[in-house]
Amino acid sequence: MRTQVGIIGAGPAGLLLAQMLHQRGIDSVVLEAKPRAYVEGRIRAGLLEQGSVDTLTEAGVADRLHREGLVHHGLHLRFGGVDHHIDLSRLTGGKAVTIYGQQEAVKDMIAIRLAAGLPLCFETEDVAVHDIASTRPRVTFRHEGRAQALDCDVIAGCDGFHGICRPSIPAADLRIFDRTYPFAWLGILARSRPMSEELIYARHARGFALATMRSTSVSRLYLQCTPEEDLAQWSDERIWSELRTRLGAADGELEEGPILQKGVTAMRSFVAEPMRHGRLFLAGDAAHIVPPTGAKGMNLAIADVRVLVRALEAFFVGRGEALMDAYSATCLDRIWKVQRFSWWMTQLLHRYDQEDAFEERIRKAELDYLASSVAEQTTLAENYVGLPLD
Amino acid sequence: MRTQVGIIGAGPAGLLLAQMLHQRGIDSVVLEAKPRAYVEGRIRAGLLEQGSVDTLTEAGVADRLHREGLVHHGLHLRFGGVDHHIDLSRLTGGKAVTIYGQQEAVKDMIAIRLAAGLPLCFETEDVAVHDIASTRPRVTFRHEGRAQALDCDVIAGCDGFHGICRPSIPAADLRIFDRTYPFAWLGILARSRPMSEELIYARHARGFALATMRSTSVSRLYLQCTPEEDLAQWSDERIWSELRTRLGAADGELEEGPILQKGVTAMRSFVAEPMRHGRLFLAGDAAHIVPPTGAKGMNLAIADVRVLVRALEAFFVGRGEALMDAYSATCLDRIWKVQRFSWWMTQLLHRYDQEDAFEERIRKAELDYLASSVAEQTTLAENYVGLPLD
Repeated sequence: MRTQVGIIGAGPAGLLLAQMLHQRGIDSVVLEAKPRAYVEGRIRAGLLEQGSVDTLTEAGVADRLHREGLVHHGLHLRFGGVDHHIDLSRLTGGKAVTIYGQQEAVKDMIAIRLAAGLPLCFETEDVAVHDIASTRPRVTFRHEGRAQALDCDVIAGCDGFHGICRPSIPAADLRIFDRTYPFAWLGILARSRPMSEELIYARHARGFALATMRSTSVSRLYLQCTPEEDLAQWSDERIWSELRTRLGAADGELEEGPILQKGVTAMRSFVAEPMRHGRLFLAGDAAHIVPPTGAKGMNLAIADVRVLVRALEAFFVGRGEALMDAYSATCLDRIWKVQRFSWWMTQLLHRYDQEDAFEERIRKAELDYLASSVAEQTTLAENYVGLPLD
Repeated sequence: MRTQVGIIGAGPAGLLLAQMLHQRGIDSVVLEAKPRAYVEGRIRAGLLEQGSVDTLTEAGVADRLHREGLVHHGLHLRFGGVDHHIDLSRLTGGKAVTIYGQQEAVKDMIAIRLAAGLPLCFETEDVAVHDIASTRPRVTFRHEGRAQALDCDVIAGCDGFHGICRPSIPAADLRIFDRTYPFAWLGILARSRPMSEELIYARHARGFALATMRSTSVSRLYLQCTPEEDLAQWSDERIWSELRTRLGAADGELEEGPILQKGVTAMRSFVAEPMRHGRLFLAGDAAHIVPPTGAKGMNLAIADVRVLVRALEAFFVGRGEALMDAYSATCLDRIWKVQRFSWWMTQLLHRYDQEDAFEERIRKAELDYLASSVAEQTTLAENYVGLPLD
């Protein structure tokens, strides 16, 4: 088999990349280790920046997103017993965010790719990349029992944090930045009316809580917990009670419904530099992880893909490798700003058990300043709706 | 002796308080442990927020300040080899800061008080406060060899970080917040033309540097150093060379002149809560210390005095103690915001030798974000010219 771009991973990064390359007449093959049903059911992020929505729209994969996505023009911050509304649109000249589950975007892109008859293989086994430092990199894998090889001009590593692409780069050529946090999120999906039309981020003496949603009838709710939290200790009643307390829910404000899913999400900040080795380009979670507080994971992946598409387009029309050479630095400049924002939101809103008294007061002062300053609210808003894309 | 307000300390806080009380017909006696010449020669901060200038003007002690002070509408940040101009006035609706040495403001207020024949005693010894939890607090001291006692309604502790007032409050009734930094500033005063019309804050791989001034012919220059730095290791030539490097000075940009003074300034964040115990009210450095990066020390003292004057005026005209009761909380709300800003400027611009790679990148990302975002620049500007006074 031969293609121009071998894409490892059928998550948002890999599928969007395949689609945007197809729009530009560039062939690709997408290889995914998991079954289609698994990929389409994997619950992940669900908040799209304005620029991400625009990118998906230009890519021609946003019809259902525009029908079913929930456009949010603001969010709520609750701390010290007071609700502060951040008017995202007013603070950013009209930008907004859209609630649309990552797995819904993935379903849309899979359906479009398969309907067009373009190559997308699920359940590929033993995927490995070869000769990535050469101009003829190769992917080997097993599919439906047969060993296969895919000759490429370029390989895109879109296979997530635990994928095989990043470890294929010699360790001596990568610099890793890694920060774990002393807490995690206990998340539930519940069949209940969302607590508010917009998201509620709450900082409470007992810990952080977040009320978000998947739709007008499905809520997504989170509680700060320990990284080793034992879900068996959390009855439904305890979860709802803790949510009511931390979110400062008025009577009837938090509708309880059947809990469809419970899980613990670890918190991590991770960056691998550079994001390119020879003809292997990393995009999305394969190269970086943000803590979920800023809702940036999928958005960063989409931003990487935009930069990569432009570089590959230039390369394949014969305009050379300058943009490919610039890919990593171009992405990383924005990625670090987004890492900073995600870290800032995280440390601002969570309870730190080992915190010294000075830091605790500084954090409270930062929240008080945020509540009082339009400029500080604007920094939050402009990051939340998304920093400018290149 | 009897007075309404016994003021301990003839620094900016004590002298301004005495003057503003006098304007309102409230008697005070100011007691200062040091000689007049020492107080007038003590080199300290030299940058006044817009609101501080307004307060000194209303207090009637700003004639020379308006004649000789240097009004600055912006400042420079240099990092990564690039100069970024922050237009303070444009970002804050026309506010500015004024360069005027603290000791000049002190000289002005001493002259005005003595010319009016109002009580101000230098070289008071063995000052002690008594019965501060009662409604008849008392100060005892020795002056010109004689033991004296001063009966007061209220005592104002304006005697600085090392003064006697804060330690007079029972330790169990105070909560102390204290943070030291792993660096200090090596500062010089030089007879040389300032490097720029406005301040230059520089972050360099070798450490922080700051170019400020006392006048159009006297420069004040600082280099990040260790808290235990040995001045004997710093020849004039080494100081100028290091300043040129860290400030990124172009040829001829940094004029060298005779160094009039050299010293090492420690960096500390400190707050004592509450700022009142019975009839003893702390103001200025007696209650809080900020690292000098944000140039906030004298401005915080002036802000405290404004709040205290309003509270004492209400008390003495018979409107009760509500504002006195609110004094500490009113001051601390703003003080912690200013502590946050001073900490933020400090950690953003200094080199941390023990820093992990993630934090180093986050800091770089914050500087890059600052360089690219008008909103973030506005948060810097609005804090630098001074958050709103009550």
